Order: sequence, then C-alpha cells, then structure tokens
Amino acid sequence: MVIRTVVWGENVHDQENPVVQQVYPDTLHGTIAAGLNEDAGIEATTATLQEPEHGLTEARLAETDVLLWWGHAAHGDVDDAVAARVAEAVWSGMGLIVLHSGHFAKVFLRLMGTACNLTWREAGERERLWITSPNHPIVAGLPNAFELEQEEMYGEPFGVPEPLETVFVSWFQGGEVFRSGLTYRRGAGNIFYFRPGHETYPTYHDANVKTVLKNAVHWANNPQARRTGVTDAPNVPADKAPEPLEVRGPRLHKDGEAGYR
Amino acid sequence: MVIRTVVWGENVHDQENPVVQQVYPDTLHGTIAAGLNEDAGIEATTATLQEPEHGLTEARLAETDVLLWWGHAAHGDVDDAVAARVAEAVWSGMGLIVLHSGHFAKVFLRLMGTACNLTWREAGERERLWITSPNHPIVAGLPNAFELEQEEMYGEPFGVPEPLETVFVSWFQGGEVFRSGLTYRRGAGNIFYFRPGHETYPTYHDANVKTVLKNAVHWANNPQARRTGVTDAPNVPADKAPEPLEVRGPRLHKDGEAGYR
Amino acid sequence: MVIRTVVWGENVHDQENPVVQQVYPDTLHGTIAAGLNEDAGIEATTATLQEPEHGLTEARLAETDVLLWWGHAAHGDVDDAVAARVAEAVWSGMGLIVLHSGHFAKVFLRLMGTACNLTWREAGERERLWITSPNHPIVAGLPNAFELEQEEMYGEPFGVPEPLETVFVSWFQGGEVFRSGLTYRRGAGNIFYFRPGHETYPTYHDANVKTVLKNAVHWANNPQARRTGVTDAPNVPADKAPEPLEVRGPRLHKDGEAGYR
Amino acid sequence: MVIRTVVWGENVHDQENPVVQQVYPDTLHGTIAAGLNEDAGIEATTATLQEPEHGLTEARLAETDVLLWWGHAAHGDVDDAVAARVAEAVWSGMGLIVLHSGHFAKVFLRLMGTACNLTWREAGERERLWITSPNHPIVAGLPNAFELEQEEMYGEPFGVPEPLETVFVSWFQGGEVFRSGLTYRRGAGNIFYFRPGHETYPTYHDANVKTVLKNAVHWANNPQARRTGVTDAPNVPADKAPEPLEVRGPRLHKDGEAGYR
Repeated sequence: MVIRTVVWGENVHDQENPVVQQVYPDTLHGTIAAGLNEDAGIEATTATLQEPEHGLTEARLAETDVLLWWGHAAHGDVDDAVAARVAEAVWSGMGLIVLHSGHFAKVFLRLMGTACNLTWREAGERERLWITSPNHPIVAGLPNAFELEQEEMYGEPFGVPEPLETVFVSWFQGGEVFRSGLTYRRGAGNIFYFRPGHETYPTYHDANVKTVLKNAVHWANNPQARRTGVTDAPNVPADKAPEPLEVRGPRLHKDGEAGYR
Repeated sequence: MVIRTVVWGENVHDQENPVVQQVYPDTLHGTIAAGLNEDAGIEATTATLQEPEHGLTEARLAETDVLLWWGHAAHGDVDDAVAARVAEAVWSGMGLIVLHSGHFAKVFLRLMGTACNLTWREAGERERLWITSPNHPIVAGLPNAFELEQEEMYGEPFGVPEPLETVFVSWFQGGEVFRSGLTYRRGAGNIFYFRPGHETYPTYHDANVKTVLKNAVHWANNPQARRTGVTDAPNVPADKAPEPLEVRGPRLHKDGEAGYR
Repeated sequence: MVIRTVVWGENVHDQENPVVQQVYPDTLHGTIAAGLNEDAGIEATTATLQEPEHGLTEARLAETDVLLWWGHAAHGDVDDAVAARVAEAVWSGMGLIVLHSGHFAKVFLRLMGTACNLTWREAGERERLWITSPNHPIVAGLPNAFELEQEEMYGEPFGVPEPLETVFVSWFQGGEVFRSGLTYRRGAGNIFYFRPGHETYPTYHDANVKTVLKNAVHWANNPQARRTGVTDAPNVPADKAPEPLEVRGPRLHKDGEAGYR
Repeated sequence: MVIRTVVWGENVHDQENPVVQQVYPDTLHGTIAAGLNEDAGIEATTATLQEPEHGLTEARLAETDVLLWWGHAAHGDVDDAVAARVAEAVWSGMGLIVLHSGHFAKVFLRLMGTACNLTWREAGERERLWITSPNHPIVAGLPNAFELEQEEMYGEPFGVPEPLETVFVSWFQGGEVFRSGLTYRRGAGNIFYFRPGHETYPTYHDANVKTVLKNAVHWANNPQARRTGVTDAPNVPADKAPEPLEVRGPRLHKDGEAGYR
C-alpha cells in the first residue's frame, strides 16, 4: 500500500519572489512532492495556504498518512482551527514532517509546547549534516555526513523538548551547530523535524536531502488504522471496572456524568 | 534562600461543595500551601482563579520560583493570555507542578502538546503508588510504595509525551494502572505531574503526599536567574559570526531585518 | 523478505521439569517459534544453551535479523564471549527481544548497564497489561488492556535505564505494578523487553502474547545492511578533515597511530 | 555539607610524557581537583591507577559522593573488579563524571552498554561548545557558547545510548560535530560525560571548563543516603503481598527460595 503523503506549502515566496522562483520553478512544495514521488511506495500530493481551509479539510487529513509542512513568511495566516485539526490528526496517528522554517509554524509550536526558537543567519554558508544515530530508518543509504554548499544557518540553543532521538547534528561554516534531525511521538503520531530547506538555495534538489525525506515518510507512516476519540476521557463506572469494586466514600460526580474539562 | 512558591487553586468546589469543604476547610490550595510551609526552605503563598488575572500577573510570576496548579471544574474559565504567560514563565525557568485534574488545565495542555486524556472513575478505591526511580530527589524519604485508601482512579493510556523520567506508577483496586509521577523539561523550566488529589478525599493531608510535594518543589526550583527573551530568534549577521565568513548567494532578508514568525 | 528470527531457549526446565513439560511439550523456545511462524513475514528457528557456542556462532548471528532470548535457571552458564558477541550483533543492527526472566541474562545486563533487578512472587496471580503507547507498532491489533489469568509477579522498582518508550505497564492481583514493555536502542539495534512468560503458565499459548511477539519482531527488525566495524574508533588525519586544517600545538600521537583503548 | 569528590587519574602520561608534564605540572587529576576545590561546597581529593585497588576501595567509594574519571592510555590496566565496584557504587547513588578519553574506560562501557566509539584527530584545532539546554544546572554562569583554542577532535557518530539530556554540542574547526555534554541516570546515580580534556592542551586550566566541572559535581551529587542491596531481587511471598492473595497453580520455586540469577 502506498503511503498517502501531502506536502503542505505556504506558497508565498514561490509566487512572489523571483529568486525563489528561479530555484524552484515548480514551487517548493511541488518540488518536494516530485522528489517523494520518485519512490514507488509514496504517493505525494500538495496543499497550500491559499486553498479553502488551507487544503487541509477533515476529509483530506483523514486520508493522509504523512503530512510535510513548509512555511515561513505567513505562519500567522494559518487558521488556528486548521492548526488544531492537524495536531489532532497527529495524535490519531498521522505522521508529520516539519521542514526548516516550519519550526515557527503554529502546528509545530502546538505539538512541542515550547518556544521553538533559535539563532539564524542568511549568508549562503556551508552546512554539513552529521548522522548521530547510525542505521536509523531515516538515514538509510546515507554516508556518515553530507554537505549542503549553501544554506541558511540555524544555531543552538534550539527551543524544543528533548527529542525521542537525535538523528542529525549540523556543522556550519560560520561556527554554529544545530540539532538538525529530531524525532518525537505525540499521541499515536510520529514527528520528524528536519532543518535544511531555505527557499533561496537548491536544497530540495539535493539527492541526500531527497533520500532523507523519502526515508522520513516511511518512518513516520503508521500503518495502523487511525485512532478515533483521541481527546476523549471516558468514565469507567465501578460496575465496569476490570476487578470487582464497591463504591465507597463521598462523590463529586453522578453516575454516567461526563468529567470536567 | 527560600523557594518562593505559589499554589494556584481554582477555588470553585472549595467554595461551593460541602463535601469538599468538610475535607478541606482551609481550601485545597490553602491546605497544600500549609503543607509546603512546614518546610523551612519553602515559602508558599496562594493565588486563585477569582483574583484579577487569576492572581498570576507578570510581576507575581517574575517572583515565583515554583508554581503548583490545582484546577478541575473551571479549566475553561482560565484566560488564554494567563495560560500563555505561565507557559512562558516555565520556559524562562519557573518550576511547575501540575496536580491531579490539572492534566486538562490549559497550561498543561499547552506545555505537553498532546491531548492529556485518560480514563477515570470516582469510587473511593485504594491507590498504591510505586516508586520507579529510586533515590530520585522527588522520592526522598519515601518507602518503595505507599497507599491512599480512597482516591479517584485515573487509567492508562495517559495522553502525554514520553517523560524525561517516570517516578511513580499507580496500582488501583479496580484493576487499572497509571504513570502517576512524570517529569518534563520545557525550556529552562522543570515540570512535574503528580496524579493523586481528588477533592473529595483527604489526599493533601497525607504525610507521604506532603513529602512528595515538598520534594517536588525543591526539585523543580531552578536557582539560576530567570532567562529573558525566551521566545527571541536573534539574527547573527555574517560579520558577527564566530568564524570569519563571507556572504554568498541569493538572499531573502536584508541586513538587520527580523525573521518571519 | 522474511525476517530471519532466532528464538534462543535455555532449554533446562523444558528438559527437566514435568510441570513445564506439561505446559510446553514442544519446549518454550519451540512454542514461541511456532507462534512466530504463524506470521508469513517471519521465519523463526531456535537455538539452545546446549549447542556448541549456544547455537549462536558468528555465522548464525550474521544471518539473524531478530533474536529472542528466554533464559532463567542457567544465566551463569552462558559463555561471556557469546554474550559479548550477541551485544555486538545488536550494536550492528540485529534486533533483540528479551523475555521475562531474561532480565538477568548476561546479554541484557551488558546492554542495559544497570542491575536489572526487581521484586517477584510465584503465586499464579492475575496480571493485566495496559497499553501506555497507543498505536505503537508493538501493540497493533491489541485492546487497551489484556489479562493473563496466572502469571508470576514482577514488581517495581525495575532496575533499568529510562527506556526510549514505555509500551506496557502491568497490574498484579497482589498489589504490585511493573513496566512490562520497554523499548531501547543500543547502537543500530532495537531492543524490546517483554515481561510475561513464566515457564509454569501457558503464557506463550496466549493469543495476545503471540500478537505482541509477532509485532515486536517486525518492530525490532532493521532492514538495512548490518553495520561493520561497530567498535572502531577511526582516526581522521588533518589532511582528511572535511575542512582545510593545519596541525598546531603539541601532540601525543604520531600520524597514522591507532588511539588508546 | 561539602560534596566529597574524588578525581581519579590514570596518571600515566602525567608521569612519563614531558609535553603533558609541562601543561600539567601538578598532574591532570591534581589540576582538576584543585579547580574543584576553589568551590567551598566541594572537597576534592585524588586517586590513581597505581594505588592499591586503584585507590577505589569499598571504603573509599562508600565515602565518595561524586567520582570524576580521567583515563586514556591504560584503560586495560583497570581491574575488572574495581570497574564493577564503581558501577555498583553508581547504581547506589554515587555521581560519576566521565572526562574526555574516559569514553573508553571500562566503567563507562559497563554503564552505557554500547561501544562508546567515535572518530578522532589530534591537530590542535579550535573547539566551540554550544549549550543546547539553557539554564541546565551544569551550564550555570556560562555564555551560550565558549571556545577552546586547541583541542583534540572527537566526531560523530558517538556510540552511546540516547541521553537523558544533551547539554553541549561541539563545533570543530576541521568540520566535525560532537555531542559534548550528555547526562544519564543509571540506578540512583547521575552520570555526566564531558568531552574536552586532551592531555596536551591546557583545557583543565580554562575558566569555563572549570565552571562546568564544578556545576557538574553539584548536579551529580545525590544527597540522599546511598542505597543498599542495589542488585537484590527480593521475593515477596503471597502472605506478604500488599493485597490479599491466594496461591494458585503450579510452582517452580519453594517458599523462601532465592530466584535464579
């Protein structure tokens, strides 16, 4: 079964900025999706900020196994309700891959619970990504390190929670480092943050980056049926308890009452 | 130096419910604070939902080393701005201890990035808390297990991220289990979730529970000066890079420009 | 491609103890392997303590994708060299599933770096395993909880490092709890510890347990080629450094010299 | 109460190598201990490989709150029994700080359960350590980054388990990166690995490094009484179970029998 993958693109600089258009004539999201579609096990389509509900309706998310998120200039234009919907889809089992400047996307902030901030510099400097978790599924087929000749710098401290696993750490020509590949699990959903991908450089044309993204889609995909009721807090009355149980003491709730939220 | 501690209480059932008032004539937050003040190293005061800004002004939080949070019936009445302010205080280094039904508090949801849901039952059943991390600072002075003769049941699965450490796991008479003591770090702030504490039972009068809370305050306290600018994402221009660096390639940002958010 | 799986059995009580023989006429390892072989994607064979090199020669391990380990009465009879060889195979990418009393196996002790101790009781009591990580690959197809009517009790504190993920927590009739399913990664190898499986009870005939083990084999399998030289610490001389580098200052080592170990 | 701290030095190059003697006329361990003793809360003494039992008798370890370990050329000369004793002291609550080439020390290998390997180069290049966990107790008083003008390079992948926390990541002039500060907990013991400290460079005279080590001693110290019986696996017979329990089913063990190991 192919992995139904949606590449979400903010699609702002892709439409307005000649430099970006020259590097990505097929848009950033279009280029990323095309790279993924080289893999017969992946079926990637795109969605953009400008579509109704940003292209991420309930129905669309229900049929999405893995979502990739690229945003930068218009994080604030993303509807809070859509961001909440994406987070809930992740909790239910949808995979999520957050790219580069997506560290400040509402979706990522909501799932991390931290400021997700960092230091940065746009100087076209060399970045070298080192693998810190050899043979992790996300690094299959990669050498111990690979270079991107021109990239934006992101520097530590990166304001995120301790990850499940650190998969890449980047070296920058200007002297900084960054934890460039981090995995998380939130509810039933696998999350991967991958640092490179500034829109003025040809990062998403790079063979190693394309390999990382394909691998990450396979890693993030959870083939089990999506969970339902992922925010429910069901009452288990005493007569349904796994062990025989007699109710004792004072009570706040009546039988069958919903809990407070 | 004493640890400046604030016990935040929702103060709803404390005012309205005769059962709760009988168990906690001094209110829940008042009782918790009194327990903490038995420790000469802790100076605990209280704040409640009904005060202006819920008693958690910028000024108050700036002088709070550790905040305890007890809420249940009125999570929705907490102002979003205050919840955001508390989260930012945590990122800057304030300790946070979330109690019992606080698993659904806006503050906790925001810091966890998950649904924080669970199953529950109010039947006055026996709970036994087992230590899973011996000699953790939070369990100092405790036996390997201790009992609460009557408590509300919370059952797994508990919708939270993998913790930094699992400190307690609870056994319930009715057949469920729960990860009852979990630590997290978000930014510079230490977070401890502690399960027991249903308002109709005398949990906060229990000697072992009081020991846990005192220990947790000491553990959560970060004696370093609070961080400032915890959401900033500063630009580091090429001429300020740690290593000599010449700017190359196309650029999106002009010198000195702020990044997008 | 099928997952080449080896079920290692100590094969002592299987040969000597009439009670065990009645519950497991095909031996423990034989029964476990037969259960795995119900899955067309798994090809399970067995190896035992009594075979030369305990059936775990270099050649055998090189062709093993996932190893399951059941031992109890004869941990001390396992050759240190074989235990070291298994650990190195794990570092190179072989999956390892440690069962029940295998918590004290040399292989597990070596990979955990802790005492791996616990409390225990053999009273045929009821165990209920609760899922703490819904939709984890290891719990696919399982309900939120399942019971084993008779099992040995293992109680906390369990002397292991914080796991990557806690997948199951057990409730015991006698009042204890235990983190019954824990994942680890050591080098390129995935490790899963699964608690149930006392030899006098029919645990490995249980449908849910069989599902867990099949799932765990799929989860532990790393389809990438096994890593070689997993203990090497290669020197990278200055003229092979990724960036141009001039050697400076005093040195301990001559060019091309191996490091100390 | 002062923290009773022992700096263990291999004391080989300190005695034989003129370059090392010029940089560390008071030996490496002597210099490290002197740095720690600048802190009134720390009382640091030394122990060396050449002393009986390497200076780490049962009695000495019982009175040691935190042990620092520096070794390089003679890891193989450390007695296995002493390494095992140190590991057990860690499990019982002694703090352990492993320095630089100590990544290959028997003690560290035993506690990590991995190969602990890395790449390396001795070229006197610049290392810049970046803080990845701001306001962690170990980084108190430090800027976001600090430099060591000449150090040995250690490069990823570093063969260790995922840490509890990543505190430092290093940038190297030659193009590599390394997770330079990692925390672990093994049993009741806190462990910190800190990368810098090659014996031909004046690293342990550096003010920032001295601050890290002082902070790390305070962080690693566990003021609770040392645990005893840390490898015990006590039987809890049915009549001592927390809940009433009737023994059922077939048994392997007789009452009061010790478990297998």
